[in-house]
Amino acid sequence: MKIKHYLLTLFLLLTTQVYLSAKALNSWKNGSSKQAIIEFVETAVDPENDGFIPESERIAVFDNDGTLWAEKPLYFQALFAFDQIRSMAPEHPEWQTEEPYASILKGDIEGALHDGEEALIKLVLASHSGMTTKGFQDMVGDWLASATHPTTGRAYTEMVYQPMLELLDYLRANNFKTFIVSGGGIDFMRVFSEAVYGIPPEQVIGSRVRADYTLVNGEPVFHRKAELGFINDKAGKPVGILEHIGRRPVMAFGNSDGDFQMLEWVTAGEGPRLGLLVHHTDEKREWAYDRESHVGSLNRGLDEAAERDWILVDMKKDWRRVFPR
Amino acid sequence: MKIKHYLLTLFLLLTTQVYLSAKALNSWKNGSSKQAIIEFVETAVDPENDGFIPESERIAVFDNDGTLWAEKPLYFQALFAFDQIRSMAPEHPEWQTEEPYASILKGDIEGALHDGEEALIKLVLASHSGMTTKGFQDMVGDWLASATHPTTGRAYTEMVYQPMLELLDYLRANNFKTFIVSGGGIDFMRVFSEAVYGIPPEQVIGSRVRADYTLVNGEPVFHRKAELGFINDKAGKPVGILEHIGRRPVMAFGNSDGDFQMLEWVTAGEGPRLGLLVHHTDEKREWAYDRESHVGSLNRGLDEAAERDWILVDMKKDWRRVFPR
Repeated sequence: MKIKHYLLTLFLLLTTQVYLSAKALNSWKNGSSKQAIIEFVETAVDPENDGFIPESERIAVFDNDGTLWAEKPLYFQALFAFDQIRSMAPEHPEWQTEEPYASILKGDIEGALHDGEEALIKLVLASHSGMTTKGFQDMVGDWLASATHPTTGRAYTEMVYQPMLELLDYLRANNFKTFIVSGGGIDFMRVFSEAVYGIPPEQVIGSRVRADYTLVNGEPVFHRKAELGFINDKAGKPVGILEHIGRRPVMAFGNSDGDFQMLEWVTAGEGPRLGLLVHHTDEKREWAYDRESHVGSLNRGLDEAAERDWILVDMKKDWRRVFPR
Repeated sequence: MKIKHYLLTLFLLLTTQVYLSAKALNSWKNGSSKQAIIEFVETAVDPENDGFIPESERIAVFDNDGTLWAEKPLYFQALFAFDQIRSMAPEHPEWQTEEPYASILKGDIEGALHDGEEALIKLVLASHSGMTTKGFQDMVGDWLASATHPTTGRAYTEMVYQPMLELLDYLRANNFKTFIVSGGGIDFMRVFSEAVYGIPPEQVIGSRVRADYTLVNGEPVFHRKAELGFINDKAGKPVGILEHIGRRPVMAFGNSDGDFQMLEWVTAGEGPRLGLLVHHTDEKREWAYDRESHVGSLNRGLDEAAERDWILVDMKKDWRRVFPR
């Protein structure tokens, strides 16, 4: 009788938990990816389990472009930069002939980016500096409120992944602290991270330009300079995490080789660890790309995910839906 | 009857609150400093009040040296650096004749620091780089566990200010997020900030050396370089806060002119703001110093605190006790 009662309680407890988890991750199809996430979290919060993780150590880091929101045809922040270059052009007559600006003004993005990352950094620096931090963030806010994606016509903040929003909520409900760790600009992401992802600015880590603190007419302002302060990508991601968080997270989520070192560091730690890569396999609902893509290229991660015991999410098979609506 | 009942409830509510607050800040003598802090917090958490602050905006920043723990006869981290220089000396025979190392090895700290900040930075870089971050933090942990203060004989982590520990607790009990914003080394402070102040590593902002992420025998490590990455002092403090937190705090606590710009920025914001400087006035229980001190010099803050409406804590008069025991 006592045992029966115990078993019943256990049964109810387990089914309730599974039910709640399943509901929380409603846009994830049942399968090994979802199962692995749930098992990790249920183990982490169970003080009786060897895999228990104290709350202060429950830190989960998320790449942004291609992991929390889309990144095709090009990083959204680059599209923002091009729009800014266009609207700043009247004050820069020299851009009509100077590359990569001239190509952007002619609408030739491919031509502008022909020389690779260096051209992109030039365009980002030109469009992201010379103003105050507040001025910059107002520009970003205005752009996000009005610009739409070139192929879907959605607002950019609606091109976030519903399954990842549910995952963020699920982790926070289990007292994980969620951070963004992105190659994107820290002040760019902070404009929308709290409203869109529920991630406050102090939990956003990204690339940055240098900024100076000065007084203008007695008012303190931060002036953004056309100088890179930090590139939070590849081996820079663990460094950015070390600077901002100061300890090794237990979960890491990414989608490209830019996230490799972050996952490598996180999953090399002692105790329970979870690394996950989103594989873009869904040419109908989103995009299908990996090794050859000029954004979010995934080579080494694809080769080594299995041996490293990282979860490889198959967007087409693992996600019931991609975007919120 | 109804009004009587209402007044009684109000009376009980008010006296309970004041009692709880007074108890929370037990080492603060009743007076204008304590009263201003309590009024600010009680207003901030009252949704009916114009001074209400939403939880996400309740961010309080604290300097460390001279604000949370003592800084005499010299910043404790500098004393750590000197001890490290001494123990590293056998591997550096050139230090026997090279300044400022030679003076340190002869026990002549004053001589070593004769040339000011530059010598101190040299000594800190020499003793804080060349190892992994974990190796460095183990060194700090060992030192903190064994070293004692030259005049009080206490462990350094026992030279924290009891009234400030109570203040940290009081603010957190009212859902303020507490951060350290110090000129001291970020990786140095993170060794003890959680255990001593209840402040987790991700809420510690400080100066830093550059670090590289690399693999050593397949294990990810961070290698500390003899290069300054950031100096989180004076106008660097607002910049450090902007990088790490990404928004303006509502409360700032310091004790020296190194905190001036931090208080300036914080208290220039709209809505309710609180800036506070600890004035070291207690030559018996701690130290008495301000304008002429070579550590924690307070000049401009002393001149402008009143006009800027910053609280100037008189350690001797405002604090019932200084150290925990």
